[in-house]
Amino acid sequence: MRRPQVLPDPTGALPDRVTIWEVGPRDGLQNEATVVPAAVKTAFIDRLVAAGHTIVEATSFVHPKWVPQLADAAEVLAGITRAEGVAFPVLVPNDRGMDRAIECGVTDIAVFASATEAFAQKNLNRGLESQFEMFEPVMARAQAEGMRVRGYLSMVFGDQWEGDVDPAQVVTVGRRLLDLGCHQLSLGDTIGVATAGHVRAVLRAFADAGVGMDRIAVHFHDTYGQALANTVVALEEGVTVVDASTGGLGGCPYAESATGNLATEDLVWMLDGLGVHTGVDLAALVDTSTWMAGHLGRPSPSRVVRALAG
Amino acid sequence: MRRPQVLPDPTGALPDRVTIWEVGPRDGLQNEATVVPAAVKTAFIDRLVAAGHTIVEATSFVHPKWVPQLADAAEVLAGITRAEGVAFPVLVPNDRGMDRAIECGVTDIAVFASATEAFAQKNLNRGLESQFEMFEPVMARAQAEGMRVRGYLSMVFGDQWEGDVDPAQVVTVGRRLLDLGCHQLSLGDTIGVATAGHVRAVLRAFADAGVGMDRIAVHFHDTYGQALANTVVALEEGVTVVDASTGGLGGCPYAESATGNLATEDLVWMLDGLGVHTGVDLAALVDTSTWMAGHLGRPSPSRVVRALAG
Repeated sequence: MRRPQVLPDPTGALPDRVTIWEVGPRDGLQNEATVVPAAVKTAFIDRLVAAGHTIVEATSFVHPKWVPQLADAAEVLAGITRAEGVAFPVLVPNDRGMDRAIECGVTDIAVFASATEAFAQKNLNRGLESQFEMFEPVMARAQAEGMRVRGYLSMVFGDQWEGDVDPAQVVTVGRRLLDLGCHQLSLGDTIGVATAGHVRAVLRAFADAGVGMDRIAVHFHDTYGQALANTVVALEEGVTVVDASTGGLGGCPYAESATGNLATEDLVWMLDGLGVHTGVDLAALVDTSTWMAGHLGRPSPSRVVRALAG
Repeated sequence: MRRPQVLPDPTGALPDRVTIWEVGPRDGLQNEATVVPAAVKTAFIDRLVAAGHTIVEATSFVHPKWVPQLADAAEVLAGITRAEGVAFPVLVPNDRGMDRAIECGVTDIAVFASATEAFAQKNLNRGLESQFEMFEPVMARAQAEGMRVRGYLSMVFGDQWEGDVDPAQVVTVGRRLLDLGCHQLSLGDTIGVATAGHVRAVLRAFADAGVGMDRIAVHFHDTYGQALANTVVALEEGVTVVDASTGGLGGCPYAESATGNLATEDLVWMLDGLGVHTGVDLAALVDTSTWMAGHLGRPSPSRVVRALAG
């Protein structure tokens, strides 16, 4: 299989290692119309771990009425092969989801917040301010249970209803999540509109507000083809955790033009070429995406998968 | 139509203006199986100029046996609407092509060279060294006619037969083209394998050899999804001329996985967001790609076109 020529960035500005936060099984599948059996999901997760992933977001305890694809969350969590040093975070939207997470013995959870008023209303049926009332009991219980909590912040770089989003507002909402006890913020370009300068500006706004890049992850969508260009800039700014979805599966069910998350393979191609360690094997990912494409009945949108599997 | 939020890069390292060298009518169509009538080609070029392009590579005088799609080069050149300040370069492979260029009153030409021995053999039927014997008479006549000559250098970041390519060899071949009289070098990632650090290393190797970034253009393929990430780095290094193909048409007919040139729309989305002036209107490009997709009978691979025209 073709591999990129390894030529590290001569500026030395990039990190030596990047942790890929694999979101394929949760964010990738949640909006998938084809019903994926729990056994396929667990096999998918096991394959991702075998490929070298150390963080695989496994499923979600969102109410099955909203995300029927992930109604089998407990079954999936029971089925996956646990591996030393591998975390399987689960999205927990509310107190009822927290009950289920505790029942399943989950140790890592994520909460999903909006950076804008409009998306908070549309996605969470709450205002920008009142979304925190939903998180507070979840966070308190997580702390009591010794769970690590990641905070997703969506519509960070643009909102399909509001348009432009002020970086200052993003920082305010993000800091609220950190103050509530999130160990990490994942900054989401939910509709994929961000460009490189915008990414740098938002990251610097967080740094200026005292939030170090060790607490920030980036979550880009490739709707307008910008995901990897934005990732390069984020790495230059010191970010070392990047969200990606194997095969480029997924997108947000409540956002327009959700043509998908950054494909993990496209990210790994770039990081391998840069000599940045991820621990993830590209060939194993491409095999996995080809296998999953068979289950979903359509080819992966990842450019790397198309080039290498074709 | 959705537009990116404009947020210039806070480092100030990027150029204020970028010239897009539009290659769609030549590089985009040359390998196209669907026969495109000359009238459609001229309308395509006229639309690109109306969208704001100032350089549109119009066609090629390669022998029709090798590139039958562009056998109508003279007819296309006669049909396009000339506009003040707009150049229509034409690819000229050899002395016979030069005869035709002169007959057609062409003022800007391009020659196509290989950075590797293997591709010189495969694509030009000549060795790396002997390719220059082919260019010399062309360059001499171009000088006598007062034509500007661009030098394309292909397989700069990897070769499908040789594998890795030494940047030092690229610089040696590139300098030969400049010494022969090329005003600009377009560094081509013909098989799309380049990653960001590699791009920076090659550009710095040219700079170290005394070749300023004002004489360099970059030509990326999106085969592995890396084109825009590589472009960001090239802009950071001072490059201000970027090759792109409206709708992402094309690829090299003699190279593997030629899934296409960087789409002009994806590039313009990024540059618009960065506040970098191009003079090119995104909506007009998307309209043009949608119109051309109708002629070709398949959708554009550009992410921006899919998001905005869908």
